[in-house]
Amino acid sequence: MSAASATSVLFTRVPRRVRVVEVGPRDGLQNEKLQVPTAVKIAFINALTLAGHTHIEVSSFVSPRRVPQLADAAQVLAGIIRRPGVTYTALVPNAEGLQRALDSGVRSIALFTAASETFNQKNIGCSVDGSFERFQPLIIAAQREGLGIRGYVSTAFVCPYEGRIAPHRTLEVVTRLRNAGVKSIAISDTIGAAYPVDISRLLDLIEARLGLDGIALHLHDTHRRALANALTGLLHGVEELDSSAGGLGGCPFAPGAKGNLATEDLVDFLEGMGISTGIDLALQRAATDLVRKTPGGNPHE
Amino acid sequence: MSAASATSVLFTRVPRRVRVVEVGPRDGLQNEKLQVPTAVKIAFINALTLAGHTHIEVSSFVSPRRVPQLADAAQVLAGIIRRPGVTYTALVPNAEGLQRALDSGVRSIALFTAASETFNQKNIGCSVDGSFERFQPLIIAAQREGLGIRGYVSTAFVCPYEGRIAPHRTLEVVTRLRNAGVKSIAISDTIGAAYPVDISRLLDLIEARLGLDGIALHLHDTHRRALANALTGLLHGVEELDSSAGGLGGCPFAPGAKGNLATEDLVDFLEGMGISTGIDLALQRAATDLVRKTPGGNPHE
Repeated sequence: MSAASATSVLFTRVPRRVRVVEVGPRDGLQNEKLQVPTAVKIAFINALTLAGHTHIEVSSFVSPRRVPQLADAAQVLAGIIRRPGVTYTALVPNAEGLQRALDSGVRSIALFTAASETFNQKNIGCSVDGSFERFQPLIIAAQREGLGIRGYVSTAFVCPYEGRIAPHRTLEVVTRLRNAGVKSIAISDTIGAAYPVDISRLLDLIEARLGLDGIALHLHDTHRRALANALTGLLHGVEELDSSAGGLGGCPFAPGAKGNLATEDLVDFLEGMGISTGIDLALQRAATDLVRKTPGGNPHE
Repeated sequence: MSAASATSVLFTRVPRRVRVVEVGPRDGLQNEKLQVPTAVKIAFINALTLAGHTHIEVSSFVSPRRVPQLADAAQVLAGIIRRPGVTYTALVPNAEGLQRALDSGVRSIALFTAASETFNQKNIGCSVDGSFERFQPLIIAAQREGLGIRGYVSTAFVCPYEGRIAPHRTLEVVTRLRNAGVKSIAISDTIGAAYPVDISRLLDLIEARLGLDGIALHLHDTHRRALANALTGLLHGVEELDSSAGGLGGCPFAPGAKGNLATEDLVDFLEGMGISTGIDLALQRAATDLVRKTPGGNPHE
C-alpha cells in the first residue's frame, strides 16, 4: 500500500483530542416533557463533572414562564459542586438574565441566534438583526466581567419553517457573531436534517473566512445521521462537538426535532477512533441514569 | 474559497450512483422472532421490486431445521413477480441448497464465510478453510449454470467471540474469495462494532491488492454508526451498500447484533447528498409496512 493511502488523506486533519460540550442539563432537560426535581438536576450535573466533562451547559436564565422546566436555574447553580477548570455555562437571553446569571456566580454564558428569520422569531421572539441588537450590550457587559461567551447559530442548515438555508446566509450570521466578539460558536443542526455534504460545504466557507478555531458542531440525531455529520466535522478538523447525556432533548419551538446526539454515542465513537475526550463512559452512563430513573423517565428510551 | 476546498478533496471519489442491495427478506426476516406468512413475504418482495430495487436478497436454501423462518424459500421464489433486470439472490450453503435454488429458478446465489474462525463455526458450522472447501464445487457449478455469485465476509471488523479482527486477516479472506472466482464481495460489520477508521483502513488494504470494484459494505446500526461507516465507504469510492427494509434483522448467531442499516435511512442519506439510488422512498416505506403490520410486527419500532 502506498504511503498516500485514502485513509491517510481522509483523516489527515482529524484532531487527536475533541472537546465534548455536554448540553443535557440545559438543551436536554429544557425540551423534555418531564419535570426533573432540582435535586436530581444537581446530582446529574455533579455526575457529569465526575464523568470528566470540562464543559457543561447547566441551565438557562430565560423567562420561567417561557421555559418552566428551567425556572430553578439559580437553585441549580447554587447547588452544584464546581470542579476547578470546568466551564459551567448558562443560557442568557437579555440583561435581566445576565444579572441573574452573575448573581448565581455564572462565569460563562451562551447566546442564541439563528440563520433563519422565522425560527429566530419563534425561538427567541425577535429578528436576526434584533438578536444582535440584544447581544451587543450583553457581550460588552460579559467581557467587562471576564465571562466566557458561546454563541449558537440555530437552524444553520435547515429550518422547520423555511426549509433549506443557503450556506452563505449561515456564514453571514457566524461572521456577525465573531465580529461582535464571540470567539466560540456552535453551528447547530437544530432538527437533525443536515447531510455530510452540507456540513462540509459550510465548514469550507467558514474556514476560508474565519478559520475553524472556536467552531463547534451541535448535532441532532433525528435521522441517525448525527455521527456521520460529526465525522464530517472531524475530517475538516473541528475540535469541539456538542452532545446530550442519553440523547435527552429536542426543541419545543422546532417541530420535528428529536433528541440531541447522545453523549454516550459520541464518546464511544471518538474514543473508538483513538480520539481522546477525557470522559469515562461508565460514569457518563451513570449520570444519564440519574435522569432516566426520574419518574416519567426519558422518552427516548 | 480556493478551488481545493476540503469538501472537494474529501468528496472527490464519492460515486454519483450507489447500488443498494436490499437484504430485508433474507437477512432481515431470518433474524426476526416473528414468523411472517409466505404470502406476506411474497407481497413484501414484490413491493420492494416496485420501489425500484435492482438487487434483492429474497431467501435462503439453508436447512429448514436451522432457520425455520426461511423454510418456505421455494414457495417464496415460486410466488414472487420477477421484474426483468432485477437480481433476486438466495443464500446457498451447500450442493443440496444449490440444487433447490436452481429448481426454484434462482439466477444469483450468496455464499457465506467469515474473517473469524469462531464466528464461522457458530454461523455455518465449519472453519474458514472448510467454508472454502464447500464453496469450490458450488462456485464451479454456479459458474457453469451462469449464475451470479455474491460472497459475504462476516465479522470483517469485530467478532462477538474473538473481538477485533486484524484487517490483514479479513484481507486474506476477501482475497481467497476473489481468487475462488467471486467478483461481488460484501464486507460485513456483523455486529455493528466497526468505526470509520476501521472501514477506511480495510478498504485501503483491499484497494491496494484487488481494487474496490465489486466490493460492497454490509453494515449494522447497533451503535448508530452505520451511516458514518457508509459515508466512509463512499469517501473511498464504494458503490454498493447493503441495507434492510425498516432495519429488520440482526443475527441469531452473533450476540449483540441489532438491526441492519435501514434502507429508508440509507436511501434518504444518499439521495439527500445527490447520490442516485433509483429507489422511491415512499414505496420503500410501503414495502416495510407490509412486514410491520404482520401480527407480531417489527420489534425495532
